[in-house]
Amino acid sequence: MREYFPNISKIAFEGPKSTNPYSFKYYDPEEVVGNKKMKEHLRFAVSYWHTLTANGSDPFGVGTMLRPWDNVNDSMELAKARMEAAFELMDKLNIEYFCFHDRDIAPEGNSLAETNENLDKLVAYCKELMKKYNKKLLWGTANCFSNPRYVHGAGTSCNADVFAYTAAQIKKAIEVTKELGGENYVFWGGREGYETLLNTDMELELDNFARLLQMAVDYAKEIGFTGQFLIEPKPMEPTKHQYDFDTATVLAFLRKYKLDKYFKINIEANHATLAGHTFQHELHVARINDVLGSVDANQGDPNLGWDTDQFPTNVYDTTLAMYEILKNNGIAPGGLNFDAKVRRASFEPEDLFLAYIAGMDTFAKGLRVAHKLLEDKVLENNMKERYASFEGGIGKDIVEGNVGFKELEKYALENNKISNKSGRQEMLEAIVNQYIFEDK
Amino acid sequence: MREYFPNISKIAFEGPKSTNPYSFKYYDPEEVVGNKKMKEHLRFAVSYWHTLTANGSDPFGVGTMLRPWDNVNDSMELAKARMEAAFELMDKLNIEYFCFHDRDIAPEGNSLAETNENLDKLVAYCKELMKKYNKKLLWGTANCFSNPRYVHGAGTSCNADVFAYTAAQIKKAIEVTKELGGENYVFWGGREGYETLLNTDMELELDNFARLLQMAVDYAKEIGFTGQFLIEPKPMEPTKHQYDFDTATVLAFLRKYKLDKYFKINIEANHATLAGHTFQHELHVARINDVLGSVDANQGDPNLGWDTDQFPTNVYDTTLAMYEILKNNGIAPGGLNFDAKVRRASFEPEDLFLAYIAGMDTFAKGLRVAHKLLEDKVLENNMKERYASFEGGIGKDIVEGNVGFKELEKYALENNKISNKSGRQEMLEAIVNQYIFEDK
Amino acid sequence: MREYFPNISKIAFEGPKSTNPYSFKYYDPEEVVGNKKMKEHLRFAVSYWHTLTANGSDPFGVGTMLRPWDNVNDSMELAKARMEAAFELMDKLNIEYFCFHDRDIAPEGNSLAETNENLDKLVAYCKELMKKYNKKLLWGTANCFSNPRYVHGAGTSCNADVFAYTAAQIKKAIEVTKELGGENYVFWGGREGYETLLNTDMELELDNFARLLQMAVDYAKEIGFTGQFLIEPKPMEPTKHQYDFDTATVLAFLRKYKLDKYFKINIEANHATLAGHTFQHELHVARINDVLGSVDANQGDPNLGWDTDQFPTNVYDTTLAMYEILKNNGIAPGGLNFDAKVRRASFEPEDLFLAYIAGMDTFAKGLRVAHKLLEDKVLENNMKERYASFEGGIGKDIVEGNVGFKELEKYALENNKISNKSGRQEMLEAIVNQYIFEDK
Amino acid sequence: MREYFPNISKIAFEGPKSTNPYSFKYYDPEEVVGNKKMKEHLRFAVSYWHTLTANGSDPFGVGTMLRPWDNVNDSMELAKARMEAAFELMDKLNIEYFCFHDRDIAPEGNSLAETNENLDKLVAYCKELMKKYNKKLLWGTANCFSNPRYVHGAGTSCNADVFAYTAAQIKKAIEVTKELGGENYVFWGGREGYETLLNTDMELELDNFARLLQMAVDYAKEIGFTGQFLIEPKPMEPTKHQYDFDTATVLAFLRKYKLDKYFKINIEANHATLAGHTFQHELHVARINDVLGSVDANQGDPNLGWDTDQFPTNVYDTTLAMYEILKNNGIAPGGLNFDAKVRRASFEPEDLFLAYIAGMDTFAKGLRVAHKLLEDKVLENNMKERYASFEGGIGKDIVEGNVGFKELEKYALENNKISNKSGRQEMLEAIVNQYIFEDK
Repeated sequence: MREYFPNISKIAFEGPKSTNPYSFKYYDPEEVVGNKKMKEHLRFAVSYWHTLTANGSDPFGVGTMLRPWDNVNDSMELAKARMEAAFELMDKLNIEYFCFHDRDIAPEGNSLAETNENLDKLVAYCKELMKKYNKKLLWGTANCFSNPRYVHGAGTSCNADVFAYTAAQIKKAIEVTKELGGENYVFWGGREGYETLLNTDMELELDNFARLLQMAVDYAKEIGFTGQFLIEPKPMEPTKHQYDFDTATVLAFLRKYKLDKYFKINIEANHATLAGHTFQHELHVARINDVLGSVDANQGDPNLGWDTDQFPTNVYDTTLAMYEILKNNGIAPGGLNFDAKVRRASFEPEDLFLAYIAGMDTFAKGLRVAHKLLEDKVLENNMKERYASFEGGIGKDIVEGNVGFKELEKYALENNKISNKSGRQEMLEAIVNQYIFEDK
Repeated sequence: MREYFPNISKIAFEGPKSTNPYSFKYYDPEEVVGNKKMKEHLRFAVSYWHTLTANGSDPFGVGTMLRPWDNVNDSMELAKARMEAAFELMDKLNIEYFCFHDRDIAPEGNSLAETNENLDKLVAYCKELMKKYNKKLLWGTANCFSNPRYVHGAGTSCNADVFAYTAAQIKKAIEVTKELGGENYVFWGGREGYETLLNTDMELELDNFARLLQMAVDYAKEIGFTGQFLIEPKPMEPTKHQYDFDTATVLAFLRKYKLDKYFKINIEANHATLAGHTFQHELHVARINDVLGSVDANQGDPNLGWDTDQFPTNVYDTTLAMYEILKNNGIAPGGLNFDAKVRRASFEPEDLFLAYIAGMDTFAKGLRVAHKLLEDKVLENNMKERYASFEGGIGKDIVEGNVGFKELEKYALENNKISNKSGRQEMLEAIVNQYIFEDK
Repeated sequence: MREYFPNISKIAFEGPKSTNPYSFKYYDPEEVVGNKKMKEHLRFAVSYWHTLTANGSDPFGVGTMLRPWDNVNDSMELAKARMEAAFELMDKLNIEYFCFHDRDIAPEGNSLAETNENLDKLVAYCKELMKKYNKKLLWGTANCFSNPRYVHGAGTSCNADVFAYTAAQIKKAIEVTKELGGENYVFWGGREGYETLLNTDMELELDNFARLLQMAVDYAKEIGFTGQFLIEPKPMEPTKHQYDFDTATVLAFLRKYKLDKYFKINIEANHATLAGHTFQHELHVARINDVLGSVDANQGDPNLGWDTDQFPTNVYDTTLAMYEILKNNGIAPGGLNFDAKVRRASFEPEDLFLAYIAGMDTFAKGLRVAHKLLEDKVLENNMKERYASFEGGIGKDIVEGNVGFKELEKYALENNKISNKSGRQEMLEAIVNQYIFEDK
Repeated sequence: MREYFPNISKIAFEGPKSTNPYSFKYYDPEEVVGNKKMKEHLRFAVSYWHTLTANGSDPFGVGTMLRPWDNVNDSMELAKARMEAAFELMDKLNIEYFCFHDRDIAPEGNSLAETNENLDKLVAYCKELMKKYNKKLLWGTANCFSNPRYVHGAGTSCNADVFAYTAAQIKKAIEVTKELGGENYVFWGGREGYETLLNTDMELELDNFARLLQMAVDYAKEIGFTGQFLIEPKPMEPTKHQYDFDTATVLAFLRKYKLDKYFKINIEANHATLAGHTFQHELHVARINDVLGSVDANQGDPNLGWDTDQFPTNVYDTTLAMYEILKNNGIAPGGLNFDAKVRRASFEPEDLFLAYIAGMDTFAKGLRVAHKLLEDKVLENNMKERYASFEGGIGKDIVEGNVGFKELEKYALENNKISNKSGRQEMLEAIVNQYIFEDK
């Protein structure tokens, strides 16, 4: 098997003083942070699509990426070359997991049957490489958005034939995920939404989407797939409105159709910001609703209104993300999938490594800072004091349901002087800064 | 009782050719549109706060509004003067309903008891004027956001005393709404949200908010208030994140706490756009979830990121809003409350009338166009054809739950050629234009 | 020569009552509006790229468009087929002008020399078809953004070889535009901007961009190209920051480098909204700076943060755009180029016609309304009264430069009571509505 | 003179390990960074309005701030109390400069004459306190936006009387700034913009605004005021469109009216982001155009569309800001004015100190990191290599103007193979992180 990145050695942890760009400064997989090793906390995954198949094209230009497999023409051979390169890259980056869509790893054929055959061949090869390299599948999924058949949606298409095809494709993708020991299966509804309400029967489309998910639940049970099902919210793009707008919207949907016990949420940072939220907000909402399933680790650009899927290099985001994840007692069986692509101008193979290193180091730093914040109970103690009034007296009565409007009115009439305390936002922000700067 | 707007006569319908700015060109209350009179379809309401108490101040400047009651100094006298002016204005504008917050109509006193006394006096006077002018209360609500006590929230405050005060205030506001025959009661959580997650226990705050709403439900039952309870979503402002972000978020919340059968949604156009949605989207989502309760009729500015609360003059918005409302078989007991304020630069008393006329005429036009669109089944016939595949064959099997993944895979394997049809968005937009331009 | 759209006949004006979707309801090219025929006012142009070469691909999916030339494989034959189809479409739509990038009409070869030869062949064929169909070139331009060589910019690349190539490509594009009698030449700097300031020497890049434009000016003079040079602003996309952010930014640049007398502005509606402005704002700013050169007629989606390039169907936008254009005494030698693409879901050939009809009708309606507004001096008379204080007294002294701070302070000290009048925004919006609804 | 903040001692530098929230962890005024002391680099200023006069009110609520002067009722006594508190605060925070609007420090009287008298009294007292505390005025300005007379603008009002009043007010403000030794004078046109183009003569308004600025230039010359004139851009709020949208827009305006040599720019971080730019972008654009005058140091919230004016606690922003400022050889006579307000929920007097400490420490950290980045030429060396092609060969010819289109075409035809190098964005972001984390 050829070596695809011969100029790159295994990336080693060299510590924060290193000037070698091809080294980890903060990510030391074996370092113990609290009760676990870094690699157990972080559960990094390579995104197959951005890393192996993306070519740097954008709406105004063709691909720019220089890739070692550029000279392979046969589509099945190309798929194999990419797969080999994927494992070499994971190996060199010390990343244990990967994630893929069915169409990332194998080309479509001339019929669904042929497509499935292609997929089976690559899945077999994948299994072999997984064993060889000791790598695992974080999650699998089906790409039900790129092909023109999905122009009006997949599970929410106006065309019943497309719904049927979608079901067939997802069935196969779940089987394949099971075959590879995938720990989760993700639903990102790339075309599940609408372009204009003038031609859309949203009610039927959402009912159908619920039917599709129920079928998936039933089928997983039937075949014994025990991985976690995840829904990934996104508010817009490619459609004008995506039905899985954000975590709250997905929860409303799942609860309506009694699907809530079968699904958790896969939060993507850039999708959170497109929805008008912070990354932490979405993680937090998922956590307190007990549906924080997995994370697509990337970042957007606050000045841009589309999904830029940048590698995460903002330490505030990674600190607050890891804070939520630690409060959640970790994210397993989910993980941190780098749903991130190198910039179109970072087109050399080396950039793949530099970008992953940047993302992994920033998350490692975030983990360390978040852990220290929690260990010192910096925010927790402040919070405890802030909400203390609900732990006794009238507050306790409220929380325990002992009082109603009449009792509270009586209390309020007798208690006219209310005293609040400052929220201390600026001080708390300064303390977080100090924890970031002083972490060693 | 003095006349507050002596220069303004009763506004009459003069038809579309009129050049008198103080006339209705499209709103003819008695005109029958389909099965009802315009006034029954539209159920317009005056917003007390924007119309009577707002003074044109903004974050960079003090009030500009010239009002006939500017020379009244005593706070109770001022409240009475405004109330008299309110009814004169409703009378002259031929608007049947109004909406208010408790603090709009009566000043706070030095204690809750005194505040309640003030409120009682004004409510008594209001009742008298309602009878005299034959006007009705669309909805009442409590202002739990302006006073400093609500700095950290009301039902979601970190301070149990504030929760108690909130409960007492809402209790009274519901009583007052009942006393005045209010057909709805609205919850807009002006401070129910957070400024920073660094100091926020969102889980407790949302649990508490649910407790508050349950108490309201219980108390309404106890006193026999049968008006509809409504929640009004808004995504941000004044807080960084408002818990009632949008309709879907509210549905997720209500379903979680088993409150969904007691509440409907009050959709505001400008809140919809701040949340990244169209006005129609929010109405549509509420409608298909059977929670379209009432409407705050205004419009925002797509270039501005705050709640501009402009009078609605965009006919596309009003046409599509009335389309959703007609599909909903009307909006009663809800209505169209003009939660809209004259621009700071429209500071003369006459502007109040010109602005309401602008809003009412634009909605009347929208109603006519929407009615004609529905009568001709323009969109319906297109939709019927578009989704026809779900009315027979495999589509029917999907909808009726007769098939699962295995059956659909079998179908898809045998049906490899999928044929979609154009969505025809541009044609549909042109047709809507034609209906707007050609409505006579 | 084959017929590409055999199912479509020449689109005729059938008036607003027509229910034939393949007819003009408002665009009657020969109708006289004020001093000119509609077709002279509107100067519509087909955008070659969106109409002939776009395939409906987006960042999440491959092309969907069904086109009559889909079965042509040879790149030169394909280019010819598209060109024939372009002229058939212009003919059937009664559109006089078209616009193109060099690479839209002819494929790149293996060298610049071969690319230029390809271009020459298609230009020769184009000339022939222009004569046959009596069509004109509104503007030409060079696509200096799609090819990977432009990954870091074209005239603002960090690579001098790319600058040289850009110059060569633009030289040829200007020659070709001249050859075809193009009335304008457009500079849209698709990659002229930056991705990150961390690696960008903006000062050198902008100096170089000015050098490039100066060379263009010099070369046009040398070869006698007398068409108008136009710069098209856009704030972002594909780069994070585009140097030609908006009209004001371009003016700052042109004035700095003394290029302002050689360039006018090509305003695109969707680029205006991405920059945080209204379409009218950008037209207005260009007009009062005497640089309103041409228009890319489309519309964006206020909820989406990327360039959706939709066909313009919002009558408010077209009315206010035509208002600015009429105030500018027309836009010739510029025109209204439909820089608009059918939605990905409008993939049938018929949609091209339906979309152009939608756009042309909406602009025709806007022209009629704007003309009537101006004829009746609706806004002008209000404006005249509003600014009357500058036509006499102290206002005249200010405008004529007769007073300074000391005189004005003296005046202000003696004139302490200032009286403003309402801006009447709501009334003016209602009047514009009335003009739109009542135009017959 | 009373002590206003008796619980607060002088804030001392205690270093990064300190757990005392009332200490500087990073700001050590006497520490030498490169060629200057920290305090000389940073030139911090207190904003009088946000610190002394703001009360925490927002569009949905009244003031919340608890201030030691709350019990002072007489407006002149209140003004004095605030002024004393201002100097105590500057003294305790070790801040050398302050900035104010005329109306921040003295109340309006019943006439312009009386208002000027009030101002004179407070200016005299200010002078006394400046001497006593050894503090300096960074800049003065006039508040021409809060009073209702400015409802339609000040220098761009439709009312000539308002223009005259504006001129008089600015004349006095410049005199007062001179009297106090102010090093700059700022023009922020709070109402210079429009609400709707339907009633706006933008051309006249901008001509008038240029006239006003020219008068200011002339008058400053006449009285010998040698401070730097600054214009502060903001894109929107309070008006829908502010004329001084961003740096580029201001440059276009100044260049048009030949005012460019008299004005520099005062960049505010939050205004930059509202305009769709990064803070660094605006600083960079100002720097390379040689108009970087001063900075309003704050931060916005990327999820919110209004001016939140938060204290700056994001180290990326402060690092990149200080990077631009160091590249500019400092910012004197400008400075870093904290145009920032404590959150409405940070209403205790202590929060003022905690917030300033947060901002000052974050800028001190940013200064250190930026200095180290520059010292090590991290970005500079990368940039030098990236643009090397312009230092010789064809690149040098381009830069030196030795070649035109023909020579470049010849070059390009012979040089068909173009080779670009990666932009390495991810690696550069990782390096910046490393510099932030490793700065000691």
